[in-house]
Amino acid sequence: MRLSALVFDAYGTLFDVHSVARKLDELFPGKGTQLSQLWRGKQLEYTWLLSLMGRYIDFDQVTSDSLRFACHTLDCAYSEEALEALRAAYRQLAMFPDAAGALSLLGQGGRQLAILSNGAPRMLEAVVEHNGLGGLLARNLLSVDAVKIYKPSPPAYRLAVEHLGVSADRIGFVSSNGWDAAGAKSFGFEVFWINRGRMPVEELGVRPDHVLNTLMELPALV
Amino acid sequence: MRLSALVFDAYGTLFDVHSVARKLDELFPGKGTQLSQLWRGKQLEYTWLLSLMGRYIDFDQVTSDSLRFACHTLDCAYSEEALEALRAAYRQLAMFPDAAGALSLLGQGGRQLAILSNGAPRMLEAVVEHNGLGGLLARNLLSVDAVKIYKPSPPAYRLAVEHLGVSADRIGFVSSNGWDAAGAKSFGFEVFWINRGRMPVEELGVRPDHVLNTLMELPALV
Repeated sequence: MRLSALVFDAYGTLFDVHSVARKLDELFPGKGTQLSQLWRGKQLEYTWLLSLMGRYIDFDQVTSDSLRFACHTLDCAYSEEALEALRAAYRQLAMFPDAAGALSLLGQGGRQLAILSNGAPRMLEAVVEHNGLGGLLARNLLSVDAVKIYKPSPPAYRLAVEHLGVSADRIGFVSSNGWDAAGAKSFGFEVFWINRGRMPVEELGVRPDHVLNTLMELPALV
Repeated sequence: MRLSALVFDAYGTLFDVHSVARKLDELFPGKGTQLSQLWRGKQLEYTWLLSLMGRYIDFDQVTSDSLRFACHTLDCAYSEEALEALRAAYRQLAMFPDAAGALSLLGQGGRQLAILSNGAPRMLEAVVEHNGLGGLLARNLLSVDAVKIYKPSPPAYRLAVEHLGVSADRIGFVSSNGWDAAGAKSFGFEVFWINRGRMPVEELGVRPDHVLNTLMELPALV
């Protein structure tokens, strides 16, 4: 096997961060979609800014903080109960329809599978269990919380090399986030970008090795 | 004087990055505003991502790269000439109406004034000259290019301390960018956030010391 391990990003790649939009829309009628997009954008922005500032705050808290900013921006008055309900919903994000089938195929034949995520360990464990992936992935849930800096910083990606005991060039990294695909390529992985949003390639000076439309194309390529 | 020096962010604070929207609209009719916003968002995002990846690319190039991404996203077919014209326009951004008066007042009385910017030295010099600020600021134009990492990383802010020879707590840092205000506060400056966009405070664990609506409120506060 050319690639000894496949490492997956979680949010946006296996789990649909916008599946909370319905819950958001119940709490803030008519604003669910817009709120969800602003929330996700700020959530990522905060991970980058905090990392650069050298002020790591875990992803559970960043998820709450960015939601609060999004609510302020869109004039959505929220209660602490509403925030708590949304934090809980984030632990039960829906899996993308292509993820279960692809993972089950890819798990055959002895190749190691792992998740490498910005998510705090407990929220990551919860969403993996909720989606019935515990058996396949529980031993290989890697969180940047171990190094206290977010992707795309190299120490975050290095976690996979160290945990799996495999060199970077024998690891396939799978992400739907264009910036994450760029960071992983810059680090040295072989990168599969699942371009769910039909977006242009990010202009960051590196390109993913493979561009796929869905995870179902992955088994034939590795 | 409590504050020995005032250090200004450039883009968005003194110079209006969206003043290129008209030029964009000439080239891509009806899409100028949307393109300008996407361009600016991506430009910042790229500075953070490249910094975290340890792949510094200067702001002139990042400005072109992010424009290319924005054009691809909005299906705007561009020529190299159009890109060059926009790169040139970025060297001639308009100054905000409140900036000239405030700077001239603040320059009286011996307090040091400086710019600390993500901008590459040549583009920074050009926009300062274009707006007639050379006499006031030419000796104190500080670019993160000297440290090859973008704001809000601490080494970027440290440039001001080292160049001005003043400790961080005696420097007032002025920015309209909420994330920049947070980074500067985290570094140790006294921070004045010019909240031009009437935005909520960023939820990054630090708050600016002062929130102003325009630069004209600044002279009375320092």
